[in-house]
Amino acid sequence: MLDICLLGTGGMLPLPDRYLTAFLARLNGKKLLIDCGEGTQVTMRLLGWGYKTVDIICFTHYHGDHITGLPGLLLTIGNAGRKEPLTLIGPPGLKKVVEGLTVVCKDLAFELNLIELPYEEQELQIGEFYISILPVPHNVKCFAYTIENRRNPKFVVEKARANNVPQKYWKTLQQGKPVTEGNVTYTPDMVLGQARKGIKVSYCTDCRPIQELEDFIRGADLFICEGMYIEDTYLDQVKKHKHMLSSEAAKLAKAGNVKELWLTHFSPALPHNYMSIDHIKPIFNNIHIGQDRMTTTLEFSEEE
Amino acid sequence: MLDICLLGTGGMLPLPDRYLTAFLARLNGKKLLIDCGEGTQVTMRLLGWGYKTVDIICFTHYHGDHITGLPGLLLTIGNAGRKEPLTLIGPPGLKKVVEGLTVVCKDLAFELNLIELPYEEQELQIGEFYISILPVPHNVKCFAYTIENRRNPKFVVEKARANNVPQKYWKTLQQGKPVTEGNVTYTPDMVLGQARKGIKVSYCTDCRPIQELEDFIRGADLFICEGMYIEDTYLDQVKKHKHMLSSEAAKLAKAGNVKELWLTHFSPALPHNYMSIDHIKPIFNNIHIGQDRMTTTLEFSEEE
Repeated sequence: MLDICLLGTGGMLPLPDRYLTAFLARLNGKKLLIDCGEGTQVTMRLLGWGYKTVDIICFTHYHGDHITGLPGLLLTIGNAGRKEPLTLIGPPGLKKVVEGLTVVCKDLAFELNLIELPYEEQELQIGEFYISILPVPHNVKCFAYTIENRRNPKFVVEKARANNVPQKYWKTLQQGKPVTEGNVTYTPDMVLGQARKGIKVSYCTDCRPIQELEDFIRGADLFICEGMYIEDTYLDQVKKHKHMLSSEAAKLAKAGNVKELWLTHFSPALPHNYMSIDHIKPIFNNIHIGQDRMTTTLEFSEEE
Repeated sequence: MLDICLLGTGGMLPLPDRYLTAFLARLNGKKLLIDCGEGTQVTMRLLGWGYKTVDIICFTHYHGDHITGLPGLLLTIGNAGRKEPLTLIGPPGLKKVVEGLTVVCKDLAFELNLIELPYEEQELQIGEFYISILPVPHNVKCFAYTIENRRNPKFVVEKARANNVPQKYWKTLQQGKPVTEGNVTYTPDMVLGQARKGIKVSYCTDCRPIQELEDFIRGADLFICEGMYIEDTYLDQVKKHKHMLSSEAAKLAKAGNVKELWLTHFSPALPHNYMSIDHIKPIFNNIHIGQDRMTTTLEFSEEE
């Protein structure tokens, strides 16, 4: 299970009725935030999932609308009583930007664990969160993120017995660790069934669509993508500013065979009640205009 | 004339229905802002006075709730098309804090003119704004501010004639500049009447009341003061955290003989609809609980 919330849906600057784009995932009580523009702590308060268990904050890039809410959020997380280290992840430049913005956060009672990543495709695991990262083309170094709750293969008693695995090792092997007894080594595949599909969510704002994104988001249960420009007439502008048309996001969603697409990061010039995606639905039908604090709970599929 | 707006009324952290304490003064199209917590640009948008003509930003101190909105506001002022330098004023530490927070504001099209002031009582004039500064006791270096629109004395034709001032010098003398012709020096007092009362607004948050504040705010048309703790039962806490009871603010207002008092900087634990100041009114009657974007226009008095 993975709880998802699109905390805000605005690009460039916060509006009275639209917070800046940020994404929150909750997995077994731990929380991962992607991006933190000005006001993110306020929409988090409206959501009500709490501050203390924000364990990881990932940044796509360091334009103001994606990070200026960081010092205020850190202070509020501190006021909520957090003592455990908090991990910050981002493309090159993370240390300098965080050092600057936290000049007003002198007395935090928790440490910041900064993971400044090279500008390349990579994966890391923090707690139960599997995080995949893809460099994407914006006018500064920018990452797309995929967050997964991976599912362990099922334990198959018949297989364990057929392989003559002593019962005392079953639990260890189920946890994915091999066991050696004398000359015999027992491996997890001797007790486990086939790999099972986990839950996958991909998040991508502020970039041009590229072939690599199709593979990166492939089969995602949810793809959250920028919709800075809803109308196709803005193609020249999106190319100039390295953003994406909503129809390009829909084409990505189709090519990547994702289940559902949410648009976000809307231009401040575009009020929600003027948005229409009727022209995009023929490309990819299961598309939704993001709303602040739009939330879903993604479950493991029933299939074995 | 001086337009005043209390942009927000919250202390510590921004709430969904309460922006952080900030003060905006508008004088002949120029604007002076005091403090800039997270979200200040959003309440400014709701106010509708525009961004481009924000000329001066003063900081009381550098706790997050008074300054974390700065980078976002600067970016938005830039997007509004400002090209002229913008002046930032504050107690010692200004340069370091601004340098840190603006790490994400690389491409501003206007310069920042930083005036880091010594921690002492002082005055400065920027454009038509007369700014007086008083160090006040908080747990970091903190300033109270008084903003004035000073009024020139009236030109008195009879006085100019009685003093035999040639008419060609009247305008120069009216502007406050002396003129020398041969052995004779003409001074402004030879054509001007008595000093006239201007408009005075004092602003003070996050400090203990001190004797010097009474003189600093004396005769103000409006005194805006923190109301972090409305109830007198919090005296131990306000002393510990170096804040002020609302009754202490009222005593200051009375002692300083101000015309009107607005309370602001309310604890996030205190919703507006639970606030009562009935117990404070006997101390100073013309007191108001601040509301976000509470606005007034202060005019020169009619008297000569």
